[in-house]
Amino acid sequence: MSETDHVAPRPLANGKSRIDFQTDPSRYRHWKLNIDDDVATLLMDVDEKATLFEGYELKLNSYDLGVDIELADAIERLRFEHPQVRAVVIRSGKPRVFCAGANIRMLAGATHAHKVNFCKFTNETRNGIEDLSEHSGLKSICAINGTAAGGGYELALAADYIMLVDDGSSSVSLPELPLLAVLPGTGGLTRVADKRKVRRDHADVFCTTEEGVKGKRAVEWRLVDAVVPGSKFDDAVAARAKDFAAASPRNGASAGQGIKLTPLTRSFSADGVEYPLVSVELNRAARIATVTVRGPAAPPPASADAMVALGAGFWPLALARELDDAILNIRLNELDVAAIVFKSAGEPAAALAYDRFLEANKSHWLAREIRHLWKRVLKRVDLTSRSLVTLIEPGSCFAGTLAELPFASDRSYMLIGTRGGDNKPPAAIALSDVNFGAYPMSNGLTRLACRFLADPAAVDAAKAAREKMLDAETAERLGLITFARDDIDWDDEVRVFLEERASFSPDALTGMEANLRFAGPETMESKIFARLTAWQNWIFQRPNAIGDEGALRRYGTGQKPVFDTKRV
Amino acid sequence: MSETDHVAPRPLANGKSRIDFQTDPSRYRHWKLNIDDDVATLLMDVDEKATLFEGYELKLNSYDLGVDIELADAIERLRFEHPQVRAVVIRSGKPRVFCAGANIRMLAGATHAHKVNFCKFTNETRNGIEDLSEHSGLKSICAINGTAAGGGYELALAADYIMLVDDGSSSVSLPELPLLAVLPGTGGLTRVADKRKVRRDHADVFCTTEEGVKGKRAVEWRLVDAVVPGSKFDDAVAARAKDFAAASPRNGASAGQGIKLTPLTRSFSADGVEYPLVSVELNRAARIATVTVRGPAAPPPASADAMVALGAGFWPLALARELDDAILNIRLNELDVAAIVFKSAGEPAAALAYDRFLEANKSHWLAREIRHLWKRVLKRVDLTSRSLVTLIEPGSCFAGTLAELPFASDRSYMLIGTRGGDNKPPAAIALSDVNFGAYPMSNGLTRLACRFLADPAAVDAAKAAREKMLDAETAERLGLITFARDDIDWDDEVRVFLEERASFSPDALTGMEANLRFAGPETMESKIFARLTAWQNWIFQRPNAIGDEGALRRYGTGQKPVFDTKRV
Repeated sequence: MSETDHVAPRPLANGKSRIDFQTDPSRYRHWKLNIDDDVATLLMDVDEKATLFEGYELKLNSYDLGVDIELADAIERLRFEHPQVRAVVIRSGKPRVFCAGANIRMLAGATHAHKVNFCKFTNETRNGIEDLSEHSGLKSICAINGTAAGGGYELALAADYIMLVDDGSSSVSLPELPLLAVLPGTGGLTRVADKRKVRRDHADVFCTTEEGVKGKRAVEWRLVDAVVPGSKFDDAVAARAKDFAAASPRNGASAGQGIKLTPLTRSFSADGVEYPLVSVELNRAARIATVTVRGPAAPPPASADAMVALGAGFWPLALARELDDAILNIRLNELDVAAIVFKSAGEPAAALAYDRFLEANKSHWLAREIRHLWKRVLKRVDLTSRSLVTLIEPGSCFAGTLAELPFASDRSYMLIGTRGGDNKPPAAIALSDVNFGAYPMSNGLTRLACRFLADPAAVDAAKAAREKMLDAETAERLGLITFARDDIDWDDEVRVFLEERASFSPDALTGMEANLRFAGPETMESKIFARLTAWQNWIFQRPNAIGDEGALRRYGTGQKPVFDTKRV
Repeated sequence: MSETDHVAPRPLANGKSRIDFQTDPSRYRHWKLNIDDDVATLLMDVDEKATLFEGYELKLNSYDLGVDIELADAIERLRFEHPQVRAVVIRSGKPRVFCAGANIRMLAGATHAHKVNFCKFTNETRNGIEDLSEHSGLKSICAINGTAAGGGYELALAADYIMLVDDGSSSVSLPELPLLAVLPGTGGLTRVADKRKVRRDHADVFCTTEEGVKGKRAVEWRLVDAVVPGSKFDDAVAARAKDFAAASPRNGASAGQGIKLTPLTRSFSADGVEYPLVSVELNRAARIATVTVRGPAAPPPASADAMVALGAGFWPLALARELDDAILNIRLNELDVAAIVFKSAGEPAAALAYDRFLEANKSHWLAREIRHLWKRVLKRVDLTSRSLVTLIEPGSCFAGTLAELPFASDRSYMLIGTRGGDNKPPAAIALSDVNFGAYPMSNGLTRLACRFLADPAAVDAAKAAREKMLDAETAERLGLITFARDDIDWDDEVRVFLEERASFSPDALTGMEANLRFAGPETMESKIFARLTAWQNWIFQRPNAIGDEGALRRYGTGQKPVFDTKRV
């Protein structure tokens, strides 16, 4: 039990030793994904016994991270396995309750780190639902028949359209503040203010009213899009879903069958994880995780059909899925890791060929989904609260898509020339079209545009250098790396940097990196991860929430919380 | 000693019982304001004994809130007392040090609330320096001859132009993270990223390098604008100041003499503060501060010259200064106040006449400065972490400029018709041109544009209703107030609301209000108060900074801090 937490870490349920982000519909305990032609239904029917940790039950469709891992998985499968689906309806399989939100007993007994990581992942899942609509045309409807409270309403807020049954009792609410003395943790306040554009005084009333808002007022205040009498609800939802599907720009039946997201091959050891294309090496003493990504072993396929035939084995897709899993594993299971060191191995020219292949096929649904997946994985990297550094060495493969890793890093070091006793050719990095638009950060800018905010001409210069192998001096001159160093200085400088990073306060690093990584404009997404998350993290530390007399700890005990009344 | 703080509140120095924001140059202990024609010099020469609290000394031009109160006062005097000044040079009166930043022993022994309030006020002061340049044309140069560390460099970042002496030792630095395990508290990271647009990896190196950056690299990395050899430094600064003054659009000698910002007349009692135009009534049991602002007693003057002759007695100026002082007093000295209730008294038509006068004279320097002062005071209200509510009752005067108070409030209640046993006419509110542009919030939007983000036509409808007396039903229909209530419901509803507000967690309210008040775009200013401040507040609570083994507490003790190594 650390002094930063008021609780000891909880054991995972069923004797598990790590949180696993891999699942598939055959293993879901909480969701059912049903496909009916071009409309999918995601039915939330939480198994209250199937918790991620010990010590609580998931009553009333409340959720923990395990429930959200299934939701995130289902969304990915809609993208890749069901390209013909054009609309999805999210609804509850339980009577009188849509979703009671994040489980309070789970939260009350969670470590600070788990609360923060839980909120981050659930935020990413909800952003993914919005991305699916905006960029893949798969429109979402949330059909609320019962109570949608807290995280339940926040899930609804991620949908394109919210329908609420008008039965005198079904309501939407954000009771976190009056009940628990915390904020809605999954973007609720930001989406109320910036997506639904609820008037600020209405939002104030809504967010301080435990029982929420129902019926006509919910529409008038823009909290939902429609209220429908119970007798007509199912028909209205089905009709709206059909309308959305008909209006969707997403490929219909012509997209074909989709591909199967086969289980990842992984092997965990005491010191790391091995995937076919990603190695994670943990140096626990130094608090470093080295993540090595491998370039393609073969040239790209001859055609889009051949890409579909490769399915989950297609190099860019396989690598993105493995990298995503590796990052999540470090985030949630390796809390002591201070810095992630990105390395790569492979032929830069071979990686560029895949970028060209995806660019040439970008109107194909699968190529598009793969690029959107990379976009989301790279955003996950940006939002990972560990120091990020890329080491660009002989034999590395930071080209095109993979060059986003040094650009996502807080610093990069590139070796000049060759290394003594090593016959690998000098390191080169290379850019492709994807570095100039395909992978925007959460603030809407490409990593290069954000990097060169002061000097847009530097973006043009980088663009002019596309498809070229850039050595260390050239990359440094173009501003693409932080430091070019020769073999003599390399080891010492990298070692000192990593030791220094491990010596700093982890909290201060998190705050600094959250501020320096995202220069420039803000979007709803960046506001959620910056403004809202930071305030929530603050509140999650405050005795008024988590102290022995705090509201989160006292909820359900029958005892009222006692607050320090000072306003700060 | 509250459980949210690791330290007991410190006594104020010299037996004072409250922090006072009123001062004048004759009383300055830390700054000298020298005027030479159209160039002013602000010389920082901190008296290390003249601290605000007991228990530390302000060595090396380090500062506490008392030092910043003088700086804020000097900036106001440049605006109002010295309209002929077109450039200001900020420099140090001490050898080899420009400014060592916020005093660390002061911070280490400060309550959480004081750290937060201190950072907020110093941020407002620095934003004021930028506003002075952007909107009044008074350009600023920071001349760094020595060390500018932490808050010292952050002060420099607020200037238009930073000059650093090139002597092999003078440097700029943000050593907060490596030394103290906190973030720069006064906008440093945001200004480095968004104002100076320092490349993110350079910023990462800079913010983790205790000794900072000097010489040519400081220019290359955009941390300063020029480095100058010591022998030429004074001449170069003087020449640059003359250039800035010559290029400034600010009125020169034609502006005349300026007006005197005479001391505010105030009377403090146990239950409040009385100013000529503002009353603050404290109900400590209910944790409510009622702030009543009074409309003008006389019509506006006949001419701009007559306005100048009135000087600090001119109603809009006098009211703005009193309201600013009243808000700051509640913020810093009345921490238990949960809600500020705004009321007003006067003739709405009389207040509108002053808005028309200022609009007609808006090219006059004094009218312009008064409107910019109102803009800043209203921003101060927006950023006050107390629930804000406006009660619009018979006899009130929420017209034009004063109507911004209900728009700045989290909620407003307006009484329908008259009150039993009272012969005052029904309440009316009224809008004027100023509500549609003169007073943008920190996000760059007017309060009405932010309020009606979903419905720009509602802004147009409000605009069409300018200069009209709007009764409660009309104001409610136009969306200008939250609730219109009649005399029968009024008392109960207002009482229940205020009791409810006092019952909620103060921290959760701060976080909720910080998110709901600022829908829409973000600016550098809003990023400082939202993203950066929230992360800093989080870190200011973390044991890695403020615990017994934390870096802030251990600084200067010779003992190294011990960190909880979990990254969150």
